[in-house]
Amino acid sequence: MKTPGCAASTHSLPTDGFPNLARFFAPRSVALLGATEDLSKFGGRCMRQIINFGFAGDLYPINPKRDEVFGHRCFPSVAALPQTPDHIGIVLPAQAVAAALEQCAERGVPYATVFSSGFSETGTEEGRCLQQRIVEIARAAGIRLMGPNCNGVINFVDAFALTSTSTINGPRRPAGDIGIVSQSGGAGQINVMWRAHQLGLGISYEVSCGNAADIDLLDYAAFMVETPSTKVVLILAEHLVDGDKLRALARRAAELDKPLVMVKAGRTEVGSRAAAAHTGAVTGNDAVCGAALAQLGVLRVDDYRDLYETAMLLRRGRRPAGRRAAATSISGGNLVLLADLGAATGIEWPTYSADTQARLRELLPGFGAASNPTDLTSAAIGQAGTFAAATAAVLDDAAVDLLIPVVTNVGSADIRALAELSASSAKPVAFLWIGRASGDSDLTPESLVAAGHAVYRDAMPCVKAIRAAMRYHEFRQRLAVPPVQRPDGIDAAAARALLAQASGALSEHQSKALLRCYGLPTTRDSLALDAEISVDAPEMRVGILRDLSFGAVMTISLGGIYAERLKEEAFRLPPFGPDEVLDALRDLRAFGLLERAHGRPASDITALTECIARMSWLAVDLQDLISELEVNSLRVLPQGRGVRIIDARVIPSASICGVQFAKSNCNTCDKV
Amino acid sequence: MKTPGCAASTHSLPTDGFPNLARFFAPRSVALLGATEDLSKFGGRCMRQIINFGFAGDLYPINPKRDEVFGHRCFPSVAALPQTPDHIGIVLPAQAVAAALEQCAERGVPYATVFSSGFSETGTEEGRCLQQRIVEIARAAGIRLMGPNCNGVINFVDAFALTSTSTINGPRRPAGDIGIVSQSGGAGQINVMWRAHQLGLGISYEVSCGNAADIDLLDYAAFMVETPSTKVVLILAEHLVDGDKLRALARRAAELDKPLVMVKAGRTEVGSRAAAAHTGAVTGNDAVCGAALAQLGVLRVDDYRDLYETAMLLRRGRRPAGRRAAATSISGGNLVLLADLGAATGIEWPTYSADTQARLRELLPGFGAASNPTDLTSAAIGQAGTFAAATAAVLDDAAVDLLIPVVTNVGSADIRALAELSASSAKPVAFLWIGRASGDSDLTPESLVAAGHAVYRDAMPCVKAIRAAMRYHEFRQRLAVPPVQRPDGIDAAAARALLAQASGALSEHQSKALLRCYGLPTTRDSLALDAEISVDAPEMRVGILRDLSFGAVMTISLGGIYAERLKEEAFRLPPFGPDEVLDALRDLRAFGLLERAHGRPASDITALTECIARMSWLAVDLQDLISELEVNSLRVLPQGRGVRIIDARVIPSASICGVQFAKSNCNTCDKV
Repeated sequence: MKTPGCAASTHSLPTDGFPNLARFFAPRSVALLGATEDLSKFGGRCMRQIINFGFAGDLYPINPKRDEVFGHRCFPSVAALPQTPDHIGIVLPAQAVAAALEQCAERGVPYATVFSSGFSETGTEEGRCLQQRIVEIARAAGIRLMGPNCNGVINFVDAFALTSTSTINGPRRPAGDIGIVSQSGGAGQINVMWRAHQLGLGISYEVSCGNAADIDLLDYAAFMVETPSTKVVLILAEHLVDGDKLRALARRAAELDKPLVMVKAGRTEVGSRAAAAHTGAVTGNDAVCGAALAQLGVLRVDDYRDLYETAMLLRRGRRPAGRRAAATSISGGNLVLLADLGAATGIEWPTYSADTQARLRELLPGFGAASNPTDLTSAAIGQAGTFAAATAAVLDDAAVDLLIPVVTNVGSADIRALAELSASSAKPVAFLWIGRASGDSDLTPESLVAAGHAVYRDAMPCVKAIRAAMRYHEFRQRLAVPPVQRPDGIDAAAARALLAQASGALSEHQSKALLRCYGLPTTRDSLALDAEISVDAPEMRVGILRDLSFGAVMTISLGGIYAERLKEEAFRLPPFGPDEVLDALRDLRAFGLLERAHGRPASDITALTECIARMSWLAVDLQDLISELEVNSLRVLPQGRGVRIIDARVIPSASICGVQFAKSNCNTCDKV
Repeated sequence: MKTPGCAASTHSLPTDGFPNLARFFAPRSVALLGATEDLSKFGGRCMRQIINFGFAGDLYPINPKRDEVFGHRCFPSVAALPQTPDHIGIVLPAQAVAAALEQCAERGVPYATVFSSGFSETGTEEGRCLQQRIVEIARAAGIRLMGPNCNGVINFVDAFALTSTSTINGPRRPAGDIGIVSQSGGAGQINVMWRAHQLGLGISYEVSCGNAADIDLLDYAAFMVETPSTKVVLILAEHLVDGDKLRALARRAAELDKPLVMVKAGRTEVGSRAAAAHTGAVTGNDAVCGAALAQLGVLRVDDYRDLYETAMLLRRGRRPAGRRAAATSISGGNLVLLADLGAATGIEWPTYSADTQARLRELLPGFGAASNPTDLTSAAIGQAGTFAAATAAVLDDAAVDLLIPVVTNVGSADIRALAELSASSAKPVAFLWIGRASGDSDLTPESLVAAGHAVYRDAMPCVKAIRAAMRYHEFRQRLAVPPVQRPDGIDAAAARALLAQASGALSEHQSKALLRCYGLPTTRDSLALDAEISVDAPEMRVGILRDLSFGAVMTISLGGIYAERLKEEAFRLPPFGPDEVLDALRDLRAFGLLERAHGRPASDITALTECIARMSWLAVDLQDLISELEVNSLRVLPQGRGVRIIDARVIPSASICGVQFAKSNCNTCDKV
């Protein structure tokens, strides 16, 4: 796409980190441009919510036609305000926003939220230019901007809401431990915040940032990650512009043990089109995005509901040390399904120790050898405390990393005893509670959730949340190993020199010379093969492509006719070591082909992983100089004999678009 | 497994159909053996539920220690009853059940429900023999038996409940249109019935049949399918014993347009073990089961919750004519996700006609070209009727088979107008309602469901239910084509004669002779290949295996090293035509390999599908004589040149277990 009429944006973020949004989220003084008492208008609803939500600072409605709004003195302009507000909300027609921002610039307002729509999301030239204009004004003046086309911010910690949403009507809910960052107002505020509240969960901050023209999703998430109240951050992303920024955020979140859970739109072409129509978002390659999120430890989920269901377990901070779960119940039918769904998801059900078995037999006379999941049978009903005591025995077993008490309709005493077990255990506990408590109408799943427990109503979301918690722990364990080392024998300067001489796409000969600068084994000529490279060795294909969001991405797939038909590709963000390559190869179902088959000798997988890991450093070093690289094919020889690059093709970035490829915030002029 | 000490069961069902369970579900008189007033006991809770649920017939508690139970005259024995009850419930220790059934046999009781546990589910020799004993007594006396180890039956249509469950406490809910058949009491009564009630759905019948030693899951389902009230039947199966019976049930259900939706346990080994421990169920090969259910039009789902979520849309009887859906909303964020999840599930989003576009522009001045899903934007808020009118325009479009109004928090007038649209439309409508109605606290998702609408709270269950409805319609359309014809040139008598002469496994030569009786093209010798059969033609592997539940099953996979590694196999129940083979081939990702690749000529797919369809008749004709057949490999030649069977191996049933293989209800002595 090309956008005549407006030059590419020149947004540059502070390279050392993320913006400081403390006063954006918790301003001492707030102004609302377009305030009114008319509740049929956005400015009226927004004004009312600031007041009703309990804002304790100075509040300045701005409207030249009024003297007072809801009992607050009203001002004719930004210039007329008695002090510079920390944060200003703008509820004006799109065409009037630029002038309003210029007033804010003169006054030195640090943060502005532009609710108005009519910008990039319209898909029109006019809308795009209007949006670029307001961003330019803000950048020039140092104003940080939320929106446009957004529904504001809600801060439960400091009782500040700048939004029109009716989801916060009524008494203000206590601040919780889950942060929410969304582009959409409806999805962030209704699908996630309101629904999470209905389940008994608590929210710390919610942001609906619309087009995210300046401050973006990751900036808000970075703020939340640093706050002590927030334990998990949920992100509803229609687009992810900056892969490096996501990497920095994910690294920091992992450091602080604060999981990021994400729904990312644009899985399908029709979804991408819908996102473009909604917030002007342009989505990149979804398979690349999925692989990158997994590599960075961001937990991607499918539906909005999955966000808070996943957070419910993660917010407790107790991580499963491994994949071994135990479940107890008096409902055998529920255990049958849980066993199945759990095993299908990768949860293991270990056998209990002899000690645990003995404890169970003591509690439940006549009980045989306990399998896991454990049907306590009706023997555990009626006898007060037996359910919880048997469950405690199972939880104590050293083979068990996580516990799932499965509760259908049981007495409230049993449920309270299980809740105590969950509260006092260092291991994570996820309730699967299908029915209700008898004998106590106040004891509900919602009340347990509000008390900090993780309570699921159905087996599928329960096992999905557990698997996410296990994946997250495994990710954090990988972080503990020393970072990937740069291999020896790389001559990056020679590679750069080679590229500097090139005009247009490199020849096979030149491409191979470039690869040899990184110590990669190439044949001299793709047609004249060494005798030792038999034509029927499985072939690999490795490439570097440029993703709209993530920049240089490595792609790994099998070559040859069979694998080509399977259309399987693994993606990884460079740089990485041989272990990560092995992990990527395991994403390919056809990977088994590389291993010993039909009497053929095993392939040299060690050499293959080392070769691709080495290539990942080329991708990092030369990412600004290369727009595309393809190695097709990479022949894998029998064990101990290495690999050979048969053919390669490199396209320097200059030859694609006539300019050196550089990261840019403008989605419209990257042809790649 | 072998079971010494008890002979194989000889259960034979009426071949012409299913048992008549009218008086089982709606008895005129009921007795309860083991009745008491003690509510801590099963017999007390069960007695109370019969009364509270409003049973209007004659009720006879039986207990030699009491004169009266809850105001009903109590009798000392079955013999002492003033009349023979239609249905008797038995709440006695396992060891006392056989004697009780003998009393029932003397009295001529037609239906008995054995609640007691301590039978096959214990996994002990004693339990298995006890169960076999009570089945034998019942069979000899013509008593039809529910259970043992079960929690009975609930009939909302006729106000009869024979169960201990607390899920029906309180006023009796009105009869609905969904039937539920479960082995587990907890899963059927709490996970499905009670939870469905919470959502506003209505149930016609619920059965929790435990070990299902006599009347089985399919018998209950067959009864429900025939009742006018029931529109959908939900089945929670831990095992499926009889594939032929399932075939008959599925055929009848499809005839009556009453979808069957099923959760089937035993997906994984650990799930199979849990099922065995719960109700003594032995599960067959899960992949075979999945393929068979799909072929028979039974909608398999993953979680218990999916059962009623799927039924919510299906019960309305309006089928989507195709896969083309439309969605409207004022929440763009929700449409982005719905577009993605829908497209990923196979739902199509057609472009609207010029007429529809014009109607939308008329209703929403300034609205551009409407994409689908359709963001009506905030222009549709506030103006009463605009949301519904725009949605009606979309629903009228000939390109639209199904409508999804997406509602977040909107006014009650809008929701009522959309509900009217849904009620009056001949096309199916599935609401996706995330939030709540403003201005009317009685208007809830539950109230709409109770009024007959399909209302989903999240996008994922919504698109899953829609896809199930689309799949079901496609299945019914396939039924409309003429049934599969037996091909010419089959000499089944010769094949039988050949098998009669065999002792042990057939040689390659004999196996091929058998295949030629069915007109199948074989080479003379697997080693001496015709010159025209090049070694690099993709190879197929076709087999007949014997499944515990479904009997003879055809298995189709690619041969050769590559496909072998992919471990892909398609299963189909014989007989079938070439179209079904093509469908099965498309289940294999590697199928593309058979099509033109790398300049090779295209393979003869027509000959391949005809060959495998022909083999499916062999599977049907000889299923009692063959325990296993493997064709490896079947070479597919270039188009127009047919296929060749290179090697084959047939194992007659006699050589496997020493006896002619015959269907049997005993799960314990089939080694296959």
